[in-house]
Amino acid sequence: MTTHKFEHPLNEKTRIYLRVEALLNQMFQSSQFRDAIQHQLFFRSLFDLLEIFEQIQLKSELAKDIEKQRQTYRSWLNVEGVDQDMLLTLLQEVDGVHRSLMNAERFGQSLKDDRFLSAIRQRFNLPGGSCCFDLPALHYWLHLPFEHKVNDASEWMSTLKPLSDALHLWLRLTRETGNYRDKMAQAGFYQGDAVDANIIRLSIPMEYGVYPMISGHKNRFAIKFIEFKSGQASTQDVAFQLAVCS
Amino acid sequence: MTTHKFEHPLNEKTRIYLRVEALLNQMFQSSQFRDAIQHQLFFRSLFDLLEIFEQIQLKSELAKDIEKQRQTYRSWLNVEGVDQDMLLTLLQEVDGVHRSLMNAERFGQSLKDDRFLSAIRQRFNLPGGSCCFDLPALHYWLHLPFEHKVNDASEWMSTLKPLSDALHLWLRLTRETGNYRDKMAQAGFYQGDAVDANIIRLSIPMEYGVYPMISGHKNRFAIKFIEFKSGQASTQDVAFQLAVCS
Repeated sequence: MTTHKFEHPLNEKTRIYLRVEALLNQMFQSSQFRDAIQHQLFFRSLFDLLEIFEQIQLKSELAKDIEKQRQTYRSWLNVEGVDQDMLLTLLQEVDGVHRSLMNAERFGQSLKDDRFLSAIRQRFNLPGGSCCFDLPALHYWLHLPFEHKVNDASEWMSTLKPLSDALHLWLRLTRETGNYRDKMAQAGFYQGDAVDANIIRLSIPMEYGVYPMISGHKNRFAIKFIEFKSGQASTQDVAFQLAVCS
Repeated sequence: MTTHKFEHPLNEKTRIYLRVEALLNQMFQSSQFRDAIQHQLFFRSLFDLLEIFEQIQLKSELAKDIEKQRQTYRSWLNVEGVDQDMLLTLLQEVDGVHRSLMNAERFGQSLKDDRFLSAIRQRFNLPGGSCCFDLPALHYWLHLPFEHKVNDASEWMSTLKPLSDALHLWLRLTRETGNYRDKMAQAGFYQGDAVDANIIRLSIPMEYGVYPMISGHKNRFAIKFIEFKSGQASTQDVAFQLAVCS
């Protein structure tokens, strides 16, 4: 049975974390310039990230959240029934990621200082703005040898490693707190509690032909299933799986 | 010897034609959804095109230009030294393209009316706005079978065929009017005449490490070569090739 998975953030901070995660993945996946157009996605992801960094103090926010996770895991030290070896390994990982994060520059600073990147950034968001006459410097760069371009890309990406490591760790540990449980949305509607949760995750069988519209904040959330074909609210009972992650 | 080629439009109309050409190519190249992120480029190109269609009466502009080309080629009928068979074949092509163009809907109309496309269009331009929680309908669509997605894409693209045929014909005939000639930019600078021209095309050896900044309008244009590494104006003599197309 094919299912599709959805994730929904329950607060603004997590919403941004998930966006940044998606952009980092997209940048990474398009950094091999496998065809003549993939660079578009690479630079678009990079510039979208810079825009987010300019709006939000992501570094201090993330450091606080990693610190909170560290405190939680520390409180499990010497607790009976907790695998202490696994816990110590995890705490070491958290410590390392936190240290790199604290030592990192403001996210995106060296990318913003890069002459080439800032030259092409301004015009990149015009509709069809990446024509050679709009961005001759980019057009020249695209003609450079493949290795040169891949090297540039991996250097740019390396400046975001402390962010990427910390974000992936936080999201992994957060996702691990939730377990999928069977639920039933009666007449296409489901409501649930999620005290202090950050993310809810859904797994929905494709056969229903529906996707979820989720509203909610911190303590409560509501899921309305919409029929893809008609765009209307579904009235059928939908058996799905739900994980609440805090 | 590796060269890189540049094109520069000499008027606003041609600037838009070249942008639309680039977007159509990009949409076509990304319409096979070969990896998990290519759909991003597909929809981005499509929505960029819709934005251009909303700003400009592209259809009537293009029809006028095709008509002008038709008049030019008609005036060569029965002129000695002109290959009449080739000319007749070309005129037939021009007639066919012009007819389809006149019968076409306003460019992008059926794409604008498409419920799915308009639902995802609004949020697509947010930085990182194509996360599943921003666009659940898109996320559902991405889980549909490969053939379904490719079919949808080719149906959407087919509505732009009259535009695409006309634009490619006009640009092909325009580009064919110019022949590359050897030129020398002394101390990195070149100035030229281009009465009633639409596009200038440059072919520049990579070894100079320069890209052109071109300014100009209709009758005159200036090319300043910039060093890629320093971002400064080059002072070396640059031997390049130039074609002026009207």
